[in-house]
Amino acid sequence: MNIAVAPSPPTTAAPPAPLAVRYAGIRARSIALASPLSAEDALVQSMPDASPAKWHLAHTTWFFERFVLATQPGHVPFNADWHYLFNSYYQSIGPAHARPQRGLLSRPSLDQVLQYRALVDQQVIGLLQANALDAQASHQLLLGLHHEQQHQELLLTDIKHALWSNPLQPAYRDDLVRTSATAIPLRWRGSPEQIVEIGAPAWPGHGAFAYDNESPRHRVLVPAHALANRPVSNAEYRQFIQAGGYRDVTLWMSEGWALCQAEGWQHPLYWDDALEREFTLGGWQALDPHAPVCHLSYFEADAYARWQGARLPTEFEWEAAASGQPLHGHFADADRLHPAGASAAGQATDTALLQLFGDVWEWTSSAYGAYPGFRPFAGNLGEYNGKFMNGQWILRGGSCATPEGHVRASYRNFFAPSARWQFAGLRLARDAA
Amino acid sequence: MNIAVAPSPPTTAAPPAPLAVRYAGIRARSIALASPLSAEDALVQSMPDASPAKWHLAHTTWFFERFVLATQPGHVPFNADWHYLFNSYYQSIGPAHARPQRGLLSRPSLDQVLQYRALVDQQVIGLLQANALDAQASHQLLLGLHHEQQHQELLLTDIKHALWSNPLQPAYRDDLVRTSATAIPLRWRGSPEQIVEIGAPAWPGHGAFAYDNESPRHRVLVPAHALANRPVSNAEYRQFIQAGGYRDVTLWMSEGWALCQAEGWQHPLYWDDALEREFTLGGWQALDPHAPVCHLSYFEADAYARWQGARLPTEFEWEAAASGQPLHGHFADADRLHPAGASAAGQATDTALLQLFGDVWEWTSSAYGAYPGFRPFAGNLGEYNGKFMNGQWILRGGSCATPEGHVRASYRNFFAPSARWQFAGLRLARDAA
Amino acid sequence: MNIAVAPSPPTTAAPPAPLAVRYAGIRARSIALASPLSAEDALVQSMPDASPAKWHLAHTTWFFERFVLATQPGHVPFNADWHYLFNSYYQSIGPAHARPQRGLLSRPSLDQVLQYRALVDQQVIGLLQANALDAQASHQLLLGLHHEQQHQELLLTDIKHALWSNPLQPAYRDDLVRTSATAIPLRWRGSPEQIVEIGAPAWPGHGAFAYDNESPRHRVLVPAHALANRPVSNAEYRQFIQAGGYRDVTLWMSEGWALCQAEGWQHPLYWDDALEREFTLGGWQALDPHAPVCHLSYFEADAYARWQGARLPTEFEWEAAASGQPLHGHFADADRLHPAGASAAGQATDTALLQLFGDVWEWTSSAYGAYPGFRPFAGNLGEYNGKFMNGQWILRGGSCATPEGHVRASYRNFFAPSARWQFAGLRLARDAA
Amino acid sequence: MNIAVAPSPPTTAAPPAPLAVRYAGIRARSIALASPLSAEDALVQSMPDASPAKWHLAHTTWFFERFVLATQPGHVPFNADWHYLFNSYYQSIGPAHARPQRGLLSRPSLDQVLQYRALVDQQVIGLLQANALDAQASHQLLLGLHHEQQHQELLLTDIKHALWSNPLQPAYRDDLVRTSATAIPLRWRGSPEQIVEIGAPAWPGHGAFAYDNESPRHRVLVPAHALANRPVSNAEYRQFIQAGGYRDVTLWMSEGWALCQAEGWQHPLYWDDALEREFTLGGWQALDPHAPVCHLSYFEADAYARWQGARLPTEFEWEAAASGQPLHGHFADADRLHPAGASAAGQATDTALLQLFGDVWEWTSSAYGAYPGFRPFAGNLGEYNGKFMNGQWILRGGSCATPEGHVRASYRNFFAPSARWQFAGLRLARDAA
Repeated sequence: MNIAVAPSPPTTAAPPAPLAVRYAGIRARSIALASPLSAEDALVQSMPDASPAKWHLAHTTWFFERFVLATQPGHVPFNADWHYLFNSYYQSIGPAHARPQRGLLSRPSLDQVLQYRALVDQQVIGLLQANALDAQASHQLLLGLHHEQQHQELLLTDIKHALWSNPLQPAYRDDLVRTSATAIPLRWRGSPEQIVEIGAPAWPGHGAFAYDNESPRHRVLVPAHALANRPVSNAEYRQFIQAGGYRDVTLWMSEGWALCQAEGWQHPLYWDDALEREFTLGGWQALDPHAPVCHLSYFEADAYARWQGARLPTEFEWEAAASGQPLHGHFADADRLHPAGASAAGQATDTALLQLFGDVWEWTSSAYGAYPGFRPFAGNLGEYNGKFMNGQWILRGGSCATPEGHVRASYRNFFAPSARWQFAGLRLARDAA
Repeated sequence: MNIAVAPSPPTTAAPPAPLAVRYAGIRARSIALASPLSAEDALVQSMPDASPAKWHLAHTTWFFERFVLATQPGHVPFNADWHYLFNSYYQSIGPAHARPQRGLLSRPSLDQVLQYRALVDQQVIGLLQANALDAQASHQLLLGLHHEQQHQELLLTDIKHALWSNPLQPAYRDDLVRTSATAIPLRWRGSPEQIVEIGAPAWPGHGAFAYDNESPRHRVLVPAHALANRPVSNAEYRQFIQAGGYRDVTLWMSEGWALCQAEGWQHPLYWDDALEREFTLGGWQALDPHAPVCHLSYFEADAYARWQGARLPTEFEWEAAASGQPLHGHFADADRLHPAGASAAGQATDTALLQLFGDVWEWTSSAYGAYPGFRPFAGNLGEYNGKFMNGQWILRGGSCATPEGHVRASYRNFFAPSARWQFAGLRLARDAA
Repeated sequence: MNIAVAPSPPTTAAPPAPLAVRYAGIRARSIALASPLSAEDALVQSMPDASPAKWHLAHTTWFFERFVLATQPGHVPFNADWHYLFNSYYQSIGPAHARPQRGLLSRPSLDQVLQYRALVDQQVIGLLQANALDAQASHQLLLGLHHEQQHQELLLTDIKHALWSNPLQPAYRDDLVRTSATAIPLRWRGSPEQIVEIGAPAWPGHGAFAYDNESPRHRVLVPAHALANRPVSNAEYRQFIQAGGYRDVTLWMSEGWALCQAEGWQHPLYWDDALEREFTLGGWQALDPHAPVCHLSYFEADAYARWQGARLPTEFEWEAAASGQPLHGHFADADRLHPAGASAAGQATDTALLQLFGDVWEWTSSAYGAYPGFRPFAGNLGEYNGKFMNGQWILRGGSCATPEGHVRASYRNFFAPSARWQFAGLRLARDAA
Repeated sequence: MNIAVAPSPPTTAAPPAPLAVRYAGIRARSIALASPLSAEDALVQSMPDASPAKWHLAHTTWFFERFVLATQPGHVPFNADWHYLFNSYYQSIGPAHARPQRGLLSRPSLDQVLQYRALVDQQVIGLLQANALDAQASHQLLLGLHHEQQHQELLLTDIKHALWSNPLQPAYRDDLVRTSATAIPLRWRGSPEQIVEIGAPAWPGHGAFAYDNESPRHRVLVPAHALANRPVSNAEYRQFIQAGGYRDVTLWMSEGWALCQAEGWQHPLYWDDALEREFTLGGWQALDPHAPVCHLSYFEADAYARWQGARLPTEFEWEAAASGQPLHGHFADADRLHPAGASAAGQATDTALLQLFGDVWEWTSSAYGAYPGFRPFAGNLGEYNGKFMNGQWILRGGSCATPEGHVRASYRNFFAPSARWQFAGLRLARDAA
């Protein structure tokens, strides 16, 4: 897919509406992320949990067609058959193509999907410029942009898994930025018991955009505890491996141990058996001992913490610490697409909490569930988050593959505890002495 | 297994130590529960989650041998090979026979297992009478009694499933007590936001017996909410079915819906398709519309609550309501072994919370996890509870199959959300207006 | 199951009809085979391919009830519900309890099944003595006797697997006969190309009893070839193992190799890893190097033959050799229940074919299929054999667990190529030079 | 994949060696078959039994590289990593990429595979023109051409399944030839018992090319029987369906019935539920009642024959009839790629056997096995056929997707009885009256 020109924002004399600019920019970013991929690469689905890059490009476009354009009078579907293909899991609006079979969709072609994107973009931008969207459609458009950013991260994690699954194990890109820094020593920062306001006001209606699962804002009693000042590093995690962490049943959840045995886990996904190299979006590279460890399942993160005599933080402890912190960090826009060690330069104290945002998602000890008073988004989009509040764990903070500006302190990511293909690591916590 | 005489407490002149009496009574109760079963019945394992009655009898005995008798100098194992057979999941003390294969153990025979019980009982009672147990052994003995009571309930739920799995579907007993009562109208009782002390002090060392997962006692901010005054009844649940609840995807968790489709659920386990009869430990009987509905999975309980515009309570809301309430209720000792409607007679108000204890376990919306500051039991028994804190939901309050005196307000039962063979129902909750 | 008295033949003054005597004897034999088993042992089903001993006892009785007694006017079913339980696979007469769940049938009890046997026996013998059976019922009774003998062998192979699956690995009996003999040297006996009459005339109507799959008798051109004078011995097979036979992909069928890898086969079922002992119905015993190897899958037998530069015989080569030979051999009635080496004493020549009958079933290279002109048994019993003519291989000659008098030269046994729990070995063949 | 120019035969002044011309022609045919496919289409693997078109193109090329070019001194592998990717199942020469994961190979790209083909073709043709191949290499080259033709047919059946698996169900080509003819009445042609020479002399060494599984030529006694003069038609098969054939357990093999139930079969693969249309390589089309039915499993073919009171022919009956017949028929070169009814024009008698070759492969009642005296090809190519002689059934005669010139009377195709995605139908046979 050699794409020279991404869909551009309109170039009329009148200044474009800001939302149109933002829309165009986010949409173009998806195209840019897919541009190193051939049409063949963009079709591969290496496991049921992952989707082909082409499907991500089409599904996010379908989202705008279905939830923005189709709310307009006289809308003619781009292709009625595609509704079935590119619906993901919104069962209240009709059946969807089975997820594990997305890799069979050689048709429509990548070229057709790109045309679909261009057409939908043209129409959406036209509506934005004409101020033609009512409140509901505008809200759904905004949700669609956040949705698209989520899929940008998934596109990266899914293509990483796909390329790794190919015995040739090619790099996604050869020109990624590389940085390194010496990890600062691990320090603890304590907090006393306190009541904390957690979450975000319900959107739309009460403040800035947030997903329904972040609402309502509510009070939580957070006990006294301490958090580590940075995520666990590769060097630290390697010690756990070398100390026999993957062979000590007493460190593991029962289900995690069974999985570890069944699948022969001996180290994080993407590491080599010598514990010296790891597969990255830039190909195989030497393991950086200072970088945050990632591609851990919840079970591995939890076992490591237990081995350290510590534990994972709750999502409330994490959010209490992150609230009010600037949203700085290494995100996807840094074009590194791999975590790196943090420089402590400029930090006022050595217990300042580093790398809360970006680099790696941090597994918490909180199971994904509803906040008190939770209400799903209205209408069909009620299926967006609520129906997955079962058997998953919360991760916080975003990663090196998360688009800048996408996360916030109240953002709740969630995955099954067995999931290893995300950029997920951990930060230690412990109870107050 | 026609057993006329259960192991009796000693009849020496000296008055027995109270713990010896309690020990003998609980041990005898297991025998009594198994007495309606033939040796063949006691061998059946109808699914991997269930265990044969004989295995329950042997495993609970092994627990006392391993954690009480084997702590004594000079202990000679009853049969060294049985350690492997009757260890359940304590991997830190050695490998165990695979759980799904417990039904293959025709040897040792039921008679041999009963002899094993008698011998272990004789030795344990001897030690108790001689005051020969140190603190650790005494604690492990006490834990073993609570452990035995848990298996008494499982013995009943497992044999119910086994007999139902036989096309002949025989009753476990024909002489069970039957009672009925008209369910009182459903009322809501509200509570304001408050900080509540939840859990129990860590045992041993700080108070009465409690499992490690109930500790430490800690403060939780419970939001304003309301609880229903009684569990949901069969009649109410039947309305949900008749209104299409099992066919409406929007009411279900995603995983629950998939399971409902794959297994063709149309009603609670043990109901007939006509919604008129249910299989009980006393055989097929007419459905009592006033009795609490039971044999629901978490997914069904959750879907029902959503259909009602309500939700499940959190375990903290439940415990806040139950703390300080008398532990009255229909337990296994009532020899009914099936839930029944509650009489409101003598209740001061119509918002009094009825049937918190006994009748049916109540699914909560709380995922099973560690309390802040949680420490597993010391030593090998650390595997008792902690390693299952993943992918399960909390149930509260005990059931008609729970031994009287076993539960308490802080007691945390837990099962996978798909589990239907327990006596599990629900009580509605809702957010404060 | 301590059974002092097996159903006896009638003791009236009039001499019993010979068929009644034979019926009573065969039926009593099943009881005798089950007599070392407790009711618990008789319930165990250790894999879907095997059935509990109790089920064998009941199913064979149901066969007589359904196909003999139920043909009589006024027959009242012993228990209408049992028809479903003890039908095996005769779908044309109604649904049957799922095979993998036979081990759940604690009810009816073993005692009840024995009562069922006694009652059916009483009625059948009464009819026989009264000469009350018409031709069809008589034929079905005769078929029932052969059917019962097949299940006698399966009862032994299934209980062997069940006892071995128990970690205690108890013996079925401690009083089995043991014999040994030095295996005579392996010699080849050649045969020229010839047209051979294969099979048996269709029964009933044309000769002695034979299964439908042995008919019609027909002409086959058997090419020039040679057969080994005896089955392959344990010592010979051990050489194959020690030479790396289980690690050499070139010796194996593709499907067999995959199975060998997936299940970690390194030797015949029931051997220990040291290749020194084997589990028998008499418990663990030293491997007799002179005895025929057994408990091989087809894949192992075939790989061994290939390693030897030889092949398995076709079923026609085998039958051509066996026709006209006396039906001598070590069968179940010798009460050894394990193969042993053959003594060559009294053999006229050293190329005489030894142990064609008894000791071990011999895998052939013939896939199980229909003879030209094959007609299944009439009526519902047409499901007896024909519908399994797919994906299975022919074995010939009977084993140490086959009742004496059950097999014949034209007898065609058949099993899936993966089956290892039968007493199955091999005899080598080769093409003529 | 818009390929204007297929690799051309050399155009030097000297006349090319005939084998080089044949080589170039067969190789170009593969390219032509793939030319309607995009690179995305060529990557799809819709089930583990099927392979992507790109993989077929690469694997057949690897076959020439490995078994022809690599036999030459100084050969440098095109790409050493590809040996692993494009080996199919020749385990004696090294491990191979797992078959179910062939659809993940976005790299190498289709373009690279086409370059690989061109380079290998250039080198092979160079060697042929230079007469540089010794006997072994020449034989392996010839085998490679037959191998390529087999994959040409698989490419078509696999892409048909892939396109059908896409909910859009696009046609492979819109310009296929369509023909129709009225099926002539079904007639029987009898044959007396006779000894027939079956098979082909072992190649190389004894005659024209044949696969090892067709050898040695040997004598078989074929009983008296009759064969139908043409394959079963769609109209006839539809009657079977409408008469309840898919619901009558007595017509089916036991394993076939289980599969039919589990997968919900109600008609041949690719038919619509109304029994009016079928999916073809030219897309959905009206069912031609006169055309031979195809896309049947063995189980369906066998059940149909039983319903007709007939049976499938043995492979010997079929070969006896086909030997000496001209190899006329509708093959892939007719560019119809779907079976059609045969015209009886010019047939001398109405019992002449029509459509023995081409249109549809005909399931036989012969399990795939070794002929007496069978020897696999020498060396690594011994894995070509022999190791699959288990659990499969023989099909004879070639289909509308078989390259012209590929089949012969002795040709033995084989598939698992569950396979439905091949162009497989049936011809009835019956025993002589």
